[in-house]
Amino acid sequence: MLRIAVLGVGRIGRMHAENIVAHPRATLAGIFDVYEPSAKEVAEKLTRFESAEAVFASPEVDAVLIATSTPTHADLLEKAVAAGKPVLCEKPIDLSLDRVNACATKIAGSDVPIMLGFVRRFDSGHRAVREAVENGTIGDLHQVVITSRDPGMAPAAYIEMSGGIFRDMTIHDFDMARFILGEEISQVSATGSRLVDPALMEKCDDYDTVTVVLKTASGKQCTISNSRRAVYGYDQRVEAFGSAGMAISENRTLNHLRLHTETGTDRAAPLMNFFIDRYADAFAAEISAFVDAVEQGKAPEVGFEDGRLALLLAEAAIRSVAEGRTVNTSEIG
Amino acid sequence: MLRIAVLGVGRIGRMHAENIVAHPRATLAGIFDVYEPSAKEVAEKLTRFESAEAVFASPEVDAVLIATSTPTHADLLEKAVAAGKPVLCEKPIDLSLDRVNACATKIAGSDVPIMLGFVRRFDSGHRAVREAVENGTIGDLHQVVITSRDPGMAPAAYIEMSGGIFRDMTIHDFDMARFILGEEISQVSATGSRLVDPALMEKCDDYDTVTVVLKTASGKQCTISNSRRAVYGYDQRVEAFGSAGMAISENRTLNHLRLHTETGTDRAAPLMNFFIDRYADAFAAEISAFVDAVEQGKAPEVGFEDGRLALLLAEAAIRSVAEGRTVNTSEIG
Amino acid sequence: MLRIAVLGVGRIGRMHAENIVAHPRATLAGIFDVYEPSAKEVAEKLTRFESAEAVFASPEVDAVLIATSTPTHADLLEKAVAAGKPVLCEKPIDLSLDRVNACATKIAGSDVPIMLGFVRRFDSGHRAVREAVENGTIGDLHQVVITSRDPGMAPAAYIEMSGGIFRDMTIHDFDMARFILGEEISQVSATGSRLVDPALMEKCDDYDTVTVVLKTASGKQCTISNSRRAVYGYDQRVEAFGSAGMAISENRTLNHLRLHTETGTDRAAPLMNFFIDRYADAFAAEISAFVDAVEQGKAPEVGFEDGRLALLLAEAAIRSVAEGRTVNTSEIG
Amino acid sequence: MLRIAVLGVGRIGRMHAENIVAHPRATLAGIFDVYEPSAKEVAEKLTRFESAEAVFASPEVDAVLIATSTPTHADLLEKAVAAGKPVLCEKPIDLSLDRVNACATKIAGSDVPIMLGFVRRFDSGHRAVREAVENGTIGDLHQVVITSRDPGMAPAAYIEMSGGIFRDMTIHDFDMARFILGEEISQVSATGSRLVDPALMEKCDDYDTVTVVLKTASGKQCTISNSRRAVYGYDQRVEAFGSAGMAISENRTLNHLRLHTETGTDRAAPLMNFFIDRYADAFAAEISAFVDAVEQGKAPEVGFEDGRLALLLAEAAIRSVAEGRTVNTSEIG
Repeated sequence: MLRIAVLGVGRIGRMHAENIVAHPRATLAGIFDVYEPSAKEVAEKLTRFESAEAVFASPEVDAVLIATSTPTHADLLEKAVAAGKPVLCEKPIDLSLDRVNACATKIAGSDVPIMLGFVRRFDSGHRAVREAVENGTIGDLHQVVITSRDPGMAPAAYIEMSGGIFRDMTIHDFDMARFILGEEISQVSATGSRLVDPALMEKCDDYDTVTVVLKTASGKQCTISNSRRAVYGYDQRVEAFGSAGMAISENRTLNHLRLHTETGTDRAAPLMNFFIDRYADAFAAEISAFVDAVEQGKAPEVGFEDGRLALLLAEAAIRSVAEGRTVNTSEIG
Repeated sequence: MLRIAVLGVGRIGRMHAENIVAHPRATLAGIFDVYEPSAKEVAEKLTRFESAEAVFASPEVDAVLIATSTPTHADLLEKAVAAGKPVLCEKPIDLSLDRVNACATKIAGSDVPIMLGFVRRFDSGHRAVREAVENGTIGDLHQVVITSRDPGMAPAAYIEMSGGIFRDMTIHDFDMARFILGEEISQVSATGSRLVDPALMEKCDDYDTVTVVLKTASGKQCTISNSRRAVYGYDQRVEAFGSAGMAISENRTLNHLRLHTETGTDRAAPLMNFFIDRYADAFAAEISAFVDAVEQGKAPEVGFEDGRLALLLAEAAIRSVAEGRTVNTSEIG
Repeated sequence: MLRIAVLGVGRIGRMHAENIVAHPRATLAGIFDVYEPSAKEVAEKLTRFESAEAVFASPEVDAVLIATSTPTHADLLEKAVAAGKPVLCEKPIDLSLDRVNACATKIAGSDVPIMLGFVRRFDSGHRAVREAVENGTIGDLHQVVITSRDPGMAPAAYIEMSGGIFRDMTIHDFDMARFILGEEISQVSATGSRLVDPALMEKCDDYDTVTVVLKTASGKQCTISNSRRAVYGYDQRVEAFGSAGMAISENRTLNHLRLHTETGTDRAAPLMNFFIDRYADAFAAEISAFVDAVEQGKAPEVGFEDGRLALLLAEAAIRSVAEGRTVNTSEIG
Repeated sequence: MLRIAVLGVGRIGRMHAENIVAHPRATLAGIFDVYEPSAKEVAEKLTRFESAEAVFASPEVDAVLIATSTPTHADLLEKAVAAGKPVLCEKPIDLSLDRVNACATKIAGSDVPIMLGFVRRFDSGHRAVREAVENGTIGDLHQVVITSRDPGMAPAAYIEMSGGIFRDMTIHDFDMARFILGEEISQVSATGSRLVDPALMEKCDDYDTVTVVLKTASGKQCTISNSRRAVYGYDQRVEAFGSAGMAISENRTLNHLRLHTETGTDRAAPLMNFFIDRYADAFAAEISAFVDAVEQGKAPEVGFEDGRLALLLAEAAIRSVAEGRTVNTSEIG
């Protein structure tokens, strides 16, 4: 049994805690949060650590999951590594590439397993696309098309603190691009528009609608289409096109109903709307992959460097929009 | 060039005439109808024969297409055969099995090509199902499921003269069943309900909603689901299930649009609603098959006996409903 | 916390036990099985009762789940009721309608909650079809079409003890028919064939390919298509057709991949093959519904009488095949 | 009856001629080609003009369709306009933007109807997407995604004379982008790769795999994905995403078969492979739109300026790839 402590028990942390409880070879060693526990939580007799330090010091904790607010990630990650505790860290490591690079320097040489929470890699459909690429089903890969649109605009307060759409939202797609492409990206060309909430975007110097084109050294292309609001639901598709075919991971609906009425033929059930529902299976698979990696002493499938490279692509996209040109990734830190 | 005359130029006859005109190796030799031609038609300078007899006697006519009212089909067919003119006859030959049998006796021994207008056999999707059966793609055939629902109730006057749902509507599906099964049907079990327009059905001693189960000697099963009214459009599906797989001919929509809005995910364009639109390609392919058969002196793919056997199955279904039992086709004339 | 003991921990019992463990308001009170526990199971320190009687007598057990072999169901159910323990009993209650009727007499008057394990009622897609009927989305219901084909033939030993396809396999579809129709069935007309394994079927006087047509007093029709072997996977579809539209619960695939290659366009991922995978969500929802019913003291959604009526329909189908006629359900016990 | 002469009767010209023959209000006035007619053609007694000039001079010709080789388009178009004959001209007007601009100057002021053969505008699915944008079904338009992949590489000789992928292939998508966006494009950012046939592409200084991102002044975005070879068939999809929904024109298959076997679930029939088959309905609708425009004396839906602007976007894309930057359309002639 791997005893995992969860740092930060907001919406995502709680969900992770439940997946840890449900996992056959993991247990919840306890939680830490800066907020006081509710009476209900006290009643549940869950171990609550008094500080993150207490978690790292505890011999009852085999590994930690960091789901605190973004600005604390890098510090906690460094401390966990220093304490020799394997880490599953929610993305992003930090909004600043400099801070991430500093963190990389600090943990260099350590062999403590670090896994980054790019949960979409664990979605069965996206993963099947990756497999179709890897096993040659679609031949040599030529083009990847990622559609990633949120079901609704996040609150203004969130947007203002998000670091901008490329660091906050597209970052998932940058990682997905790297996952499917299987080759590093050398060029980034990005386009941004303010169409969903122009006033807020203006205020934050941000975009709500972006298209990014990536290219690898060998010429593989990847297009990412993002929008902050798709009224029909959470639109999450990945298409890979190659010399021998095409594989598409399609959207997921609430159930398998198809409805035919006078006002519409062959209508599907609504798309899953909330990322925790849409990627519920993936979040469970992510915990399972973390437990496997720690148990077997192997490197997690998605690690610190993946987190750093996704942020680097975000920086390149920001520069590309600002300068109206294709940016080479080698230009970025 | 095969010079084909069209007898009866109502809705269906006109459509056939247009297909003859468009066919590269056929021409419209002229038409005959009991109704006076309109001024527009006169202006079009189309040959109008004064009588059906004139058509059969004309050396300018190589073949005839019978699209007159049902009660005249058998007589005209007999005359055409007597005149040695190949015939494409709209279904049904007659609503009376006795009359059809008498007609069969009369034309026995003739080698004039007779083709029956079971147009659905020429639909590319249904035909692909037949091919998947014939070429072994789905192995030995076990079950066929035919869904055939009209987009709207025909007018009461039509229903009253139709001969009842089994002779008028299910007859297409009986032929489709024989086409897909590739083996004669030995048993018929039918169920009828009055759900769409109970009053009219009561008045006509007819049904608007029926399910028929057919079985061949070797045990192959076929289910037919009919309704006189599907509000979502003309529902025409054929499923064949066998030891090695399943082939389904799906519905056809007006175009390939898929629409996603707040009130509906992945909604298709409307189904084609009108049989002449839905089976437009099939009607053209039917003319083409007729031209081919006459040109090449071979038996048409669907002939007189197919028309007779479909009607025989309708009679068996009527008896099955009346007596609440499975009827052997050998019981029927 | 509802403390549930599981009787019988074969394949299905174990799966139920896991779902009980995962349920937020239920715990596994212990298990009983006639087989000796394995060393591994001992190590897991799970409470193992020495007999079913011990389970029923235990004050630590709030409710029981019966997943033992079919012949023991009725006895255990009677004992559970006598002990006042709410029961979730796997289907069927018994293969003999007489035995089920005797059981009904014995438990008459008790208000101990009894739930029958017709798990398909809890599938989100099938349930959405039911809702489309109930809330009027598709208007008045006219026809239901249930396709239910197993991915592979069960072992001969299983088939021989199964009670025949109608009592063993179609029984799920009889319950689904009643669930969707929302009106009792008055007439049954069944057709059976031996196409998958004729020799075994001959030996067992059983069928591997059946079509059943059901009718309610008001004329609603339902067709069930069963096969013991669909090579493309576990084919589980439910279609409801009404005066205002059609709702279809489609098949479920392993993931949402669509593959396009030179040998096939728009190919889906394989169908889920194993009933425990296909209905995994439904099995969890079933436990949840049981916990809810017991907690809230309300009648379970699917109860003893539902189990009895499904078996009665199986008896009617058997008679219909034997006598080649439509059987009224009033003819059966 | 509109008497249309066809100039150039290669593959496309012949197809147009057949559509003219089949059109109810058009006739084929005759043809002209530099090649000698075959014996068969002579037998068909079709009027063959001795020169293009003879066509333009003939009082028996009401309108002309130009389907000759690309380098002759602009000259013939100028002569047709000078002769006052309405023109349907195959795309492109010319491969040189300068030549097109010169042509524009020459015909300026004429009110002779000129229609450009951007046939895809007449596809029922793509058109339904345009309508969903125009009638507000999907709200304000934010993103357009055009996937356009040929089923197979054209012969090397063709590629060498094609003017490059942007002028030859993407030009259709530039027009589709303008058609769907309904607003002029201000910025072009293009990426090109050599992945299908690197040697040939190197030789021609051309690309076989390109991604282009377009942006309008108001910020609407459009992505085009092109490949010279999709082994699964002719991939032609158009997606429009807006504030109220998404509309997608999906691919078209040979028929409506869905096949389920041990090696593949829910496989569609093959995609239509050949552009003349895929856009057969659109080609017929195009002729019809031309006849309507000439008859009613209104401007054709897609005219000379549309042809010029599509070529201008191709020039911008070529510059964008060459310079690795976003190009403003105002920079191009």
